[in-house]
Amino acid sequence: MHNPTTASERMTLLDQQIAEALTALDGPAELMRRMAQYSIGLIGTQGEETDPETRAQVQGKRLRPQIAMLVAEAVGGSAEHAAPAGAAIELLHNFTLIHDDIQDRSPNRRHRPTVWRVWGDGQAINAGDALFAVSQLALLRSAPYLTADQMLLLMEAFNRCTIEIVRGQVQDINNEGRADVTPTDYLEMITGKTATILGFSAWAGALIGGATRESCNCMRDLGLAIGRGFQIRDDALGIWSPASETGKDAADDIRRKKQSLPILILRNAANEEDAARITEISREEEITDQLVAEMISLLAKYDVEGQVADHVQAEHHTAMAILDDVFGDAENSAVVELRTLITQLVNRSY
Amino acid sequence: MHNPTTASERMTLLDQQIAEALTALDGPAELMRRMAQYSIGLIGTQGEETDPETRAQVQGKRLRPQIAMLVAEAVGGSAEHAAPAGAAIELLHNFTLIHDDIQDRSPNRRHRPTVWRVWGDGQAINAGDALFAVSQLALLRSAPYLTADQMLLLMEAFNRCTIEIVRGQVQDINNEGRADVTPTDYLEMITGKTATILGFSAWAGALIGGATRESCNCMRDLGLAIGRGFQIRDDALGIWSPASETGKDAADDIRRKKQSLPILILRNAANEEDAARITEISREEEITDQLVAEMISLLAKYDVEGQVADHVQAEHHTAMAILDDVFGDAENSAVVELRTLITQLVNRSY
Repeated sequence: MHNPTTASERMTLLDQQIAEALTALDGPAELMRRMAQYSIGLIGTQGEETDPETRAQVQGKRLRPQIAMLVAEAVGGSAEHAAPAGAAIELLHNFTLIHDDIQDRSPNRRHRPTVWRVWGDGQAINAGDALFAVSQLALLRSAPYLTADQMLLLMEAFNRCTIEIVRGQVQDINNEGRADVTPTDYLEMITGKTATILGFSAWAGALIGGATRESCNCMRDLGLAIGRGFQIRDDALGIWSPASETGKDAADDIRRKKQSLPILILRNAANEEDAARITEISREEEITDQLVAEMISLLAKYDVEGQVADHVQAEHHTAMAILDDVFGDAENSAVVELRTLITQLVNRSY
Repeated sequence: MHNPTTASERMTLLDQQIAEALTALDGPAELMRRMAQYSIGLIGTQGEETDPETRAQVQGKRLRPQIAMLVAEAVGGSAEHAAPAGAAIELLHNFTLIHDDIQDRSPNRRHRPTVWRVWGDGQAINAGDALFAVSQLALLRSAPYLTADQMLLLMEAFNRCTIEIVRGQVQDINNEGRADVTPTDYLEMITGKTATILGFSAWAGALIGGATRESCNCMRDLGLAIGRGFQIRDDALGIWSPASETGKDAADDIRRKKQSLPILILRNAANEEDAARITEISREEEITDQLVAEMISLLAKYDVEGQVADHVQAEHHTAMAILDDVFGDAENSAVVELRTLITQLVNRSY
């Protein structure tokens, strides 16, 4: 049995692994390393070290590696052994964010200009490509803790997970501006784009922690439920959250005509007259405050907020039931932390 | 001792491995698979199978996997065992081409519209990302032929090679429009961008073929020399080749103001007056036929063509000397093929 770690100890282990992996970018073309370090919050645009507060803000909760390391501990293994995989997952996630921001023309991420806006599209593509390669190097450092066959399985699952993320992104771009996207299409898309990496995180943590194949698969399902719950809650926050909580304007997703789950549920449920009006609104050049208010009242008319909350609760329930099944009463501190984390995620206040 | 393979047998083995790896893209978001298959010449934009002639034209010589498989055979191993690595290399190469074409705004590649021009920048970024992940899956299929440690080494070298390719691309974009790029900068850039993958191809072929660590390193140097020689020859063709040979206009690189090796050597060698004129010409909106002729005569004045030819010959000499050192007189048919291939590459006619 390994000693339980604190969240702060896990983040130190993670930082060490990330730093080690990033040394592969040392050498000529210093810009490559600089873009990578900027994207994960280590430095500013001029190469200056960030202060701890900025760094914490850019790095966020680092949910994915946290889950990998917590699950490793929960199944009786060591968070330290899962740190290389955690680093790989965090680097993979950042690679996809850099490319997503180019694709979505997002000007800012976590209150700082996006990589493409600072260094241009071409170099931002390079930054993402380099980070993806670095993430593989990080993952290879899991080898001392696995058999050769497990290592191959880990590398294969990591790259299959990446393909699912890209698949979700292909679908997301494909769905833009289409009026016939269903809630089911959407749930498929976010499973690939957002949930798969959380599924991989929990699965990899279990594998490295020494769990049985069956438990590894249960943990993957746990990660998927967390990922879907997290994303759907995020969609709710994009509409019903006051600006102070998210750093975005209230109803930001309505203004940006984002086809998030609430809008798709509304479109699906609306009667003919309301559906026609929703289409009309979506064709307006600018979504004014008045149109936002109209959409909010249409969402209320069909109780979309309640339906979205039901989706989140269902994922929360699935995740908690998996924890019960796998760990029963024999709870260690990591399992307790996982329960807390899951509940916090789906209860994020508006 | 394994039976020697013909080029056509090697390409069949390669095609099988590529097809197998691409199955990872099956499933929803069919566009993802379609873009990947299009980029490697298997289908047209509408999903229709390409005819053998088009396919051969798009796929070209497939130099990189050829070298991996030939080297495996040359060191006494099996081309078949090197086929998964060959597939990985070819898929990696295609991933970088897709992203390069976005970065360079290239409208066509091998006489067909580029991926970004058919499906847009966002989806083309996705296509490259997906192919990179698929290339890792292909490489993992080398495991049956290697020890666990060798497999880790192979995966690590593959991703370090990718980082060098990206590094070269970062430098290439950085150098655009700069007047102070030296021939030395340029050789560093093409070593990363073009030669490293050939170095990896030959090294990986040797590793999988069962060569000693020392021979593997010699083969890597062989690949690097081939890669540099190939690229420098390509630069020469971009200026002194008649249109009929390359499918581009004669002196195409002058018209496009490409900072290839001949131009950098010229700028380095030119006296003050000529250097000023070269700068003047580079600032012209359009490079007319008259300006092209002027540049051609400046290149002739400083015998740049001769100097470029010397560079190519030096790389050819290095490559041949390595083959002599490693294989001496004990030549098998793969070594003979390697010699022929190297000589063809650097003697590609204008």
